[in-house]
Amino acid sequence: MPANPAERRNSVQQAIAEIAEFMGDRLSTSQAVRDQHGKDTTWNPGHSPDAVAFVNNTEEVQKIVRICNRYEVPVIPHGTGTSLEGHITAPFGGITIDLMNMNQVLEVNTMDFDVRVQPGVTRKQLNEYIRDQGLFFPIDPGADASLGGMTATRASGTNAVRYGTMRDNVLSLTAVMPDGEIVRTARRAKKSSAGYDLTRLMVGSEGTLSVITEICLKLYGIPESIAAGVCPFPSIEAACTAAITAIQSGIPIARVELVDEENLKAFNAYSKLGLAEKPTLFVEFHGTKAYTREQVEQFDEIASELGGGPFEWATKEEDRNKLWQARHDGWWAIKAAMPGKEALGTDVCVPISRLAECVEETRKDLEDNGLYGPILGHVGDGNFHVVLFCNRNDPEEVKKTEEFLYRLAMRAIAMDGTCTGEHGIGSGKRKFLEAEHGPAVAVMRTIKQAIDPKNIMNPGKIFPG
Amino acid sequence: MPANPAERRNSVQQAIAEIAEFMGDRLSTSQAVRDQHGKDTTWNPGHSPDAVAFVNNTEEVQKIVRICNRYEVPVIPHGTGTSLEGHITAPFGGITIDLMNMNQVLEVNTMDFDVRVQPGVTRKQLNEYIRDQGLFFPIDPGADASLGGMTATRASGTNAVRYGTMRDNVLSLTAVMPDGEIVRTARRAKKSSAGYDLTRLMVGSEGTLSVITEICLKLYGIPESIAAGVCPFPSIEAACTAAITAIQSGIPIARVELVDEENLKAFNAYSKLGLAEKPTLFVEFHGTKAYTREQVEQFDEIASELGGGPFEWATKEEDRNKLWQARHDGWWAIKAAMPGKEALGTDVCVPISRLAECVEETRKDLEDNGLYGPILGHVGDGNFHVVLFCNRNDPEEVKKTEEFLYRLAMRAIAMDGTCTGEHGIGSGKRKFLEAEHGPAVAVMRTIKQAIDPKNIMNPGKIFPG
Repeated sequence: MPANPAERRNSVQQAIAEIAEFMGDRLSTSQAVRDQHGKDTTWNPGHSPDAVAFVNNTEEVQKIVRICNRYEVPVIPHGTGTSLEGHITAPFGGITIDLMNMNQVLEVNTMDFDVRVQPGVTRKQLNEYIRDQGLFFPIDPGADASLGGMTATRASGTNAVRYGTMRDNVLSLTAVMPDGEIVRTARRAKKSSAGYDLTRLMVGSEGTLSVITEICLKLYGIPESIAAGVCPFPSIEAACTAAITAIQSGIPIARVELVDEENLKAFNAYSKLGLAEKPTLFVEFHGTKAYTREQVEQFDEIASELGGGPFEWATKEEDRNKLWQARHDGWWAIKAAMPGKEALGTDVCVPISRLAECVEETRKDLEDNGLYGPILGHVGDGNFHVVLFCNRNDPEEVKKTEEFLYRLAMRAIAMDGTCTGEHGIGSGKRKFLEAEHGPAVAVMRTIKQAIDPKNIMNPGKIFPG
Repeated sequence: MPANPAERRNSVQQAIAEIAEFMGDRLSTSQAVRDQHGKDTTWNPGHSPDAVAFVNNTEEVQKIVRICNRYEVPVIPHGTGTSLEGHITAPFGGITIDLMNMNQVLEVNTMDFDVRVQPGVTRKQLNEYIRDQGLFFPIDPGADASLGGMTATRASGTNAVRYGTMRDNVLSLTAVMPDGEIVRTARRAKKSSAGYDLTRLMVGSEGTLSVITEICLKLYGIPESIAAGVCPFPSIEAACTAAITAIQSGIPIARVELVDEENLKAFNAYSKLGLAEKPTLFVEFHGTKAYTREQVEQFDEIASELGGGPFEWATKEEDRNKLWQARHDGWWAIKAAMPGKEALGTDVCVPISRLAECVEETRKDLEDNGLYGPILGHVGDGNFHVVLFCNRNDPEEVKKTEEFLYRLAMRAIAMDGTCTGEHGIGSGKRKFLEAEHGPAVAVMRTIKQAIDPKNIMNPGKIFPG
């Protein structure tokens, strides 16, 4: 990008003029549209881009990127805007490419268990589309995010313990590179040893290397039987141990979510669940009828031995949905408990052997600092969330919150974990990248500079300034 | 590398002198050692390096790479030498780094199901080491390859249908970069969204980006029950359909291998198995006792409906081992059928919906051209092998074999598959990279040039010259 602000402004205006020529009224410079696209769902105030282009196809993305490349103008890809770490903000202005009109499911290959989608297809939309064919896409980050955004942030969620993350479930993708070249990263074979794994390089690159315009995803057969349940435990440690023991025993748990007391209180208040206000695991098992029953029995035994229970479980879809709806409504439930404050959800991930310790230390940290912060965890992965509340206008509160976030990320890193298991670095966690990766950051920068020498692709993300 | 041969020779001699200073007699320039390290297990005649360094630790690798960088001398990493595509040959000379003395299991984390190993540990050595802890590492390419080599080539094998490939099972790795920097690509958390996925970039990079000196791998609990069996089918298509139907039905098959008639004949002659000489599936199921039995019953039903059977199965370890030993002895069994000829194993991988068609067309191609080529397939992945025989001194035979290999790779690519599912590109398949990846090859080259601007890391591999 040009360093001089006046020169930068001039470049942007020229780029907008050229893009408007073929985008017409699908290029918006209205303040409202720009503001809406510069701000995500977090406390981050965000910066608005100079214009928003509502693209319909890969070729339009290519044209826009070529123009932005020529004028050295930032390009910010945009999906549903449900980022939790400021991925979509435009700190240097530029053109936001809104991909939500590219929302077609292009090809379902039922025999191969794969699907090709445009990036604006959301996970719920995809699952509705393929349900009749007995297939489902398991990655579920809670929000009904776009599959493009989920790919770009390497999202995961409650099902990752069994089905993996976006890293494991993207077979290939089509991306527009900073020079406008359209690249398909891999073919449709389930595996390949042919050359560098560009698919995995793009997954989680947060729009800093390319704009993703098509994604080929793995699908799974809808299990014959699904059983879900809730099980309270005397302590967080007992709950974590139960989850680890179940995994060690070879039970292929599909989901296992830790919900702490604070959360349970909020859930009960919001969703009228009437659950015991103790550390609780929400679990789900997939399989044949007989095998699901066997898993439930095995889990029940493990839970009982650790003082957990009673384990209440449901195989009816209606009852299961009620449970998971409560889990997914967690964000709103917790928000409702703290009216008038801005909520922010953060996540870290540690080796599961350190999870109970990390959660307990974090609980204590919250208490010691008088912070309200319910904890939700994807226990099977060692990944957990803390939801915090902050009045952005109170510098003291902001400082206290930021200090807590710093300690949390560094605590996870010190336990050989990561500052983010699934939200991404975005603009919010750039300060932790060096602490986590050390000399590897230089290799990442080398790649970034080689692929995007003008730094036009989502600048101000991932790398510390 | 210096282009001028005299200058290049001079550089190499200087590098060897400096490396010898600290490596002593662990740096060998003996012709026998050099020749042995320049030739893999294929028909590729190979080129010898100028010297072979038997390293003991990461720091020695770092020192050697720094010297090679200064003198622009090629660095060729070397494991067990079981490559099938000429990964370890030294077409431009240079220093081969033999990593087989780095054969320590460094850390087993039983609670986290992971292990940290040096690159010279072989998969069998690892499995012997962890068996007492109820754990196993599933990736099984047949040969007792080093885990470093398996990582570098993105290896997989018979278990990949259930457990994935090296791509899915490397949690992180330590690598010496071309400038000598030591980089750890990720921490020990099961998942992360923090920055570019350097782990996956190094997995499958075939020594062209770095020398891998430590690997952290995922482990799995040894299943309570394992059942294995063989089931003959009336045709290759019926066998493939059975495998696909089983997967579609949600049976989590651990292994499913297609063995064609030619193979069966060779197996029977070599291992005295007395099996029907028909297209046959070797299958294996993992689970609890009850669940394994259920899987066997489900599979049996699917096979019967397709005219397959009788399905003979074994749960006793001894019987199972006999079966898989026969499958793994396949290479030797086939070799024994063609004495005096050089064998070469090739592999391609297609979407499973195209597998039967690809195998049938390949069978016909072999017949039409009077070539003997048994076919073995990892049917669950769409991946299959053809073993060919060639007298290297007969130009006509060489030409015929090369033309067949060309048609096979292009056939797979035309079916939206890959020219190699698990062997890698090495020096043998470079000519197919552009056909498979198109403009993506330019992105791979950009990365290669940025990370290794002097092209010292395993030159002459992956990229067409």
